Amino acid sequence: MSHNTFGHLFRVTTWGESHGPAIGCVVDGCPPGIRFMRAEIQAELDRRRPGRSRFVTQRREPDQVQILSGVLPEEDGETLVTTGTPISMLIENVDQRSKDYGAIAQRYRPGHADYAYEAKYGLRDHRGGGRSSARETAMRVAAGALARKVVPGLKVRGALVSMGEKEIDRANWDWDFVNHPDNPFFTPDSQSVPVFAEYLDSIRKNGSSVGAVIEVVAEGVPAGLGAPIYGKLDQDICSALMSINAVKGVEIGNGFAAARITGEQNADEMRAGPDGRPVFLSNNAGGVLGGISTGQPVVARFAVKPTSSILTPRRSVDRSGAEVEVVTKGRHDPCVGIRAVPIGEAMLACIIADHYLRHRGQTGRI
Amino acid sequence: MSHNTFGHLFRVTTWGESHGPAIGCVVDGCPPGIRFMRAEIQAELDRRRPGRSRFVTQRREPDQVQILSGVLPEEDGETLVTTGTPISMLIENVDQRSKDYGAIAQRYRPGHADYAYEAKYGLRDHRGGGRSSARETAMRVAAGALARKVVPGLKVRGALVSMGEKEIDRANWDWDFVNHPDNPFFTPDSQSVPVFAEYLDSIRKNGSSVGAVIEVVAEGVPAGLGAPIYGKLDQDICSALMSINAVKGVEIGNGFAAARITGEQNADEMRAGPDGRPVFLSNNAGGVLGGISTGQPVVARFAVKPTSSILTPRRSVDRSGAEVEVVTKGRHDPCVGIRAVPIGEAMLACIIADHYLRHRGQTGRI
Amino acid sequence: MSHNTFGHLFRVTTWGESHGPAIGCVVDGCPPGIRFMRAEIQAELDRRRPGRSRFVTQRREPDQVQILSGVLPEEDGETLVTTGTPISMLIENVDQRSKDYGAIAQRYRPGHADYAYEAKYGLRDHRGGGRSSARETAMRVAAGALARKVVPGLKVRGALVSMGEKEIDRANWDWDFVNHPDNPFFTPDSQSVPVFAEYLDSIRKNGSSVGAVIEVVAEGVPAGLGAPIYGKLDQDICSALMSINAVKGVEIGNGFAAARITGEQNADEMRAGPDGRPVFLSNNAGGVLGGISTGQPVVARFAVKPTSSILTPRRSVDRSGAEVEVVTKGRHDPCVGIRAVPIGEAMLACIIADHYLRHRGQTGRI
Amino acid sequence: MSHNTFGHLFRVTTWGESHGPAIGCVVDGCPPGIRFMRAEIQAELDRRRPGRSRFVTQRREPDQVQILSGVLPEEDGETLVTTGTPISMLIENVDQRSKDYGAIAQRYRPGHADYAYEAKYGLRDHRGGGRSSARETAMRVAAGALARKVVPGLKVRGALVSMGEKEIDRANWDWDFVNHPDNPFFTPDSQSVPVFAEYLDSIRKNGSSVGAVIEVVAEGVPAGLGAPIYGKLDQDICSALMSINAVKGVEIGNGFAAARITGEQNADEMRAGPDGRPVFLSNNAGGVLGGISTGQPVVARFAVKPTSSILTPRRSVDRSGAEVEVVTKGRHDPCVGIRAVPIGEAMLACIIADHYLRHRGQTGRI
Repeated sequence: MSHNTFGHLFRVTTWGESHGPAIGCVVDGCPPGIRFMRAEIQAELDRRRPGRSRFVTQRREPDQVQILSGVLPEEDGETLVTTGTPISMLIENVDQRSKDYGAIAQRYRPGHADYAYEAKYGLRDHRGGGRSSARETAMRVAAGALARKVVPGLKVRGALVSMGEKEIDRANWDWDFVNHPDNPFFTPDSQSVPVFAEYLDSIRKNGSSVGAVIEVVAEGVPAGLGAPIYGKLDQDICSALMSINAVKGVEIGNGFAAARITGEQNADEMRAGPDGRPVFLSNNAGGVLGGISTGQPVVARFAVKPTSSILTPRRSVDRSGAEVEVVTKGRHDPCVGIRAVPIGEAMLACIIADHYLRHRGQTGRI
Repeated sequence: MSHNTFGHLFRVTTWGESHGPAIGCVVDGCPPGIRFMRAEIQAELDRRRPGRSRFVTQRREPDQVQILSGVLPEEDGETLVTTGTPISMLIENVDQRSKDYGAIAQRYRPGHADYAYEAKYGLRDHRGGGRSSARETAMRVAAGALARKVVPGLKVRGALVSMGEKEIDRANWDWDFVNHPDNPFFTPDSQSVPVFAEYLDSIRKNGSSVGAVIEVVAEGVPAGLGAPIYGKLDQDICSALMSINAVKGVEIGNGFAAARITGEQNADEMRAGPDGRPVFLSNNAGGVLGGISTGQPVVARFAVKPTSSILTPRRSVDRSGAEVEVVTKGRHDPCVGIRAVPIGEAMLACIIADHYLRHRGQTGRI
Repeated sequence: MSHNTFGHLFRVTTWGESHGPAIGCVVDGCPPGIRFMRAEIQAELDRRRPGRSRFVTQRREPDQVQILSGVLPEEDGETLVTTGTPISMLIENVDQRSKDYGAIAQRYRPGHADYAYEAKYGLRDHRGGGRSSARETAMRVAAGALARKVVPGLKVRGALVSMGEKEIDRANWDWDFVNHPDNPFFTPDSQSVPVFAEYLDSIRKNGSSVGAVIEVVAEGVPAGLGAPIYGKLDQDICSALMSINAVKGVEIGNGFAAARITGEQNADEMRAGPDGRPVFLSNNAGGVLGGISTGQPVVARFAVKPTSSILTPRRSVDRSGAEVEVVTKGRHDPCVGIRAVPIGEAMLACIIADHYLRHRGQTGRI
Repeated sequence: MSHNTFGHLFRVTTWGESHGPAIGCVVDGCPPGIRFMRAEIQAELDRRRPGRSRFVTQRREPDQVQILSGVLPEEDGETLVTTGTPISMLIENVDQRSKDYGAIAQRYRPGHADYAYEAKYGLRDHRGGGRSSARETAMRVAAGALARKVVPGLKVRGALVSMGEKEIDRANWDWDFVNHPDNPFFTPDSQSVPVFAEYLDSIRKNGSSVGAVIEVVAEGVPAGLGAPIYGKLDQDICSALMSINAVKGVEIGNGFAAARITGEQNADEMRAGPDGRPVFLSNNAGGVLGGISTGQPVVARFAVKPTSSILTPRRSVDRSGAEVEVVTKGRHDPCVGIRAVPIGEAMLACIIADHYLRHRGQTGRI
């Protein structure tokens, strides 16, 4: 039980505030003998990094990851091998402008955790949201980069499927486009780029913000991961996605749409496959039945709310109980959902890695 | 880490299969000195019990709960007092018709966990779904009845808000109607009863099934429960709801709708309240900000898929890999979402009780 | 985190009081496909059962175990196969003489948990010690009987090596004698039987009690179980043995004796073995180095204090704070250490089974 | 479940190897609002630091602790206040002489974890013992310095009570002498200093090593901490002490001596105390009855084996299976038990802090 750890056998603990000297994580339980390069972790971090386009926060953080323990260098000087002991990773905070936050030290920002936080702890580090800062998610991405290596053949990808009132056209889905340099939105639909750009420019210029829906997909998940009751694979995936800041809803497979259809429409039929395993004719289940993976792609979606850091004054109260108006200056993402794509992928990878090890532990069937 | 336990300080472990001699649970960590009556537990179980109307499974289970440990009787002979030690509860399985299931012993039912289960364990108790049976949820309801007692002033209620294509009219919301004897659907809208009845009769007579959406609400939740990162209150609520069989999506507050609006529309503004605490002017957040409760009602919804136990033949394979058609006879719910209402309430109550104790442990602020 | 659960992947939760209707346990995480017979569990329970000689408590409990979930019967009607789901076991309490305990309801027995218990919970089930009763240990033995099946080739045995001032002669060690029908003490030294018998008869007739030291040994433990820091195999073994009622000390290998010798004397030297693995020339380490098993037998000892349920009056206070004298009638063991032998074995087996699964989970090297 | 974490509500995770860039820990679950100074943490670390006398390893490590998260500075510039979020602490490794270890890269040192480690992970960081290095214990001391602040009025102290064949005279016990500058042994008996010095000089000059027994005592522990079964306070203390490198045995109160006496001798009698609470006339129990604290001082002892890093050649095998002789050069402690005193104190403090929060969580009685 820990408020800053997730996972059971593949465990991730994160620490750090937005405006302290550094943030970091400890990945415990990683199998020994896994080879990777620091550059691979860094590449994932760079996907989440602020300041890459005008559509994300202008905070300038190089986000250079240091790997402090749990690995041995190979002779090539690039490759690291996990030793099975905890892997500590650290990123220094560079661009902290604490002065930006002075105005809100005494005020509860509507839609932010300020009041709830103070109700819990009796005190609060208001600078950059303290522990509630989205900056913490960098460490999830770093841990996820390792998790991707744990399950042989695992491929985890994500994409933004809607932003505010605008949606992609699924007929145009192209995974290769998601990480294209001309795509600042992680959208899989190249035709959506100008639509999203115009829409978000308008939002941004108004000092407003907007929500988004992200879809994450894991391929190469062996059948058998998860458990029937409280260790359901989809339960743990939803929990992990829900733990991302600003997420308000999660769903697996056809999700809420399943509530509107009949059993005939919903059941994924099976036919005999070439290797003796069933081939599913559809994937409404999102790769999970009864909490256990079926071997189909695992598909989840999550809804990200618009950040409440906006320039329009909102009514609130301050710590003394007096009524005030709050405007949040500082540098913020007009659509925090964009950078949530690599974060969602990372969380999905971590949960699958954890269940892979748990399944192997209990059953020895991998 | 356990596949059959949830909660940290208020911990619930369940055990049992649909067709074994009994099912049960152990509630560990319950505070000492809590007074309750067996009849109160039973009353909650009766709300979930099968066979109460033509719209739920006709399996006849009295579901009489036995309380085997962790309590001392008071002199009135009715009241029990928790001692702080584990509370073991047990319900005997009475109406087990294993023969109903013979036809599916060798076949994987589409939309069921049969194949995934066997991929995991290499063997499977096919009778009634074994451990995957919805019967396990009775023990959640029993545990939830205790959880409701842990937090002073806590009130947890739930209602069905849509069934397949049919929705309630929120303007008619009446909590008092939800448990009315003439209401077989846990709907809060009395005008929806004939609509749902006609719709579900049609589904049932066709041997089909349909999904539903359930809303659960907790009032009297103190501000400060939860944690900023991986112990978010809403995260744990969503995980708990997602662990209910057949649930495919969960959301908090305005949930997926938050992804479609702006920060101005979404932020819940505050004004000074009479007791020095803020009064929120709306509750888009669903009572949770930054993972921590605000004192507003906690509101969550979850989508239940239609059961795949239907009379229409569906294509599948059997254990030998041969292609077959599957029809699921036996006694089943045409809309499993109906009986999910008390289950959802119970899970919400358990999570809040757990976080109440966790918050008290770390901060001593309750 | 649970006060009534131990283990991580092989998890045991127990419940029940001495004077309630039943006691029980839930074993979660057991691998699927393990074959055993109810009679095998019962045989272990019978070794711990009260009333088998004049040297143990005369409470008459048949201790018939019921297996309520988590298993499928094979066609022979005797063999059960684990399904991978939680295994619930239950024993009814039959011989409860609550009236024996009336005299101590208001008094704190010296050396008992009475005062501490009430300081914790604010109330207490005084009958038979409530949750603190040694009766709870029956469920450890039941769980341990399953644990013995989890690790192929594992053999766990135990013996009493001293009782009060009397010790065995290790030169006479004979494992086959430990469970001999003429051996009421689990001693491995047949010549010690008359010595212990005379000594304990004297203790018993005086209404006194005496302590003991138990040694438990696990053979067939694969090298590699455990972890270097906080998952040390010996740490978890000591924790498990220390959790047995009345245990005041635990040690691994040469234990406290290691503190009195030099590094030359203590280090177990190695030579090349026939299969390429090292052969150790001694086993001061008790089979564990740096927290990880070496493949040598795992050897632990634990000290059991004399029960404080004695006929000699001892000074104490009552719940009102008044000074009183306490005499504990009721039926008690003059040397609780005797029946601790199968309990110690069971705990050792459970910890090794758990670490076997944990090791397999993280490394896949089994 | 984690191999590198201990505690439940007050949780400590450590990471790092002896010869990596740094070691560190994350303390999660610390209550908010606790005031301390970095210098207080440093003072505890300095007690454990190598190189302080000729009787400990000559490795020169300044062991300057950095506090990276979870605190807010007060205006005095010295005081830090915990925020309730994870506290990350880090110490850089400065004096790493990896070349010292080249000779043992391929050889299994007798009495060391080398072989067991490689059997577990399939690879090993041989430099300085890798993760098994005693250097990891610095982070326990840092965490323990925080833990001491969690329980109001708690005082945790420790002392060395025997070294090899030499023991202190308990009649000379003087807590004030333990940390005296002229006392390189943490002995409470000033007359033992020349005895230990002469003895250990002889051991050291022979390139040998010797074991020790440490006693740790916690005063100011409220009655009621712990739990009757698997959350016993003494169980968790023993587990924590057993997790310290080289510890082979642990005991509470009179420990193994309890096994040799009668119930009359062992039971701690009680009389009425001035504040309505019982006064105990002795403390054989070591402050814990039935797993729950009584309010008496908590007393535990642990046995530390002699390090196997010695200059006398010992027989062993190498990674290829060939028979070799091993001599361990490098810089080592002739009696690792000396520096175990602050480590034992730290572990005791951490466990008590954890149980304090757990007790408050479940019962609200603090």
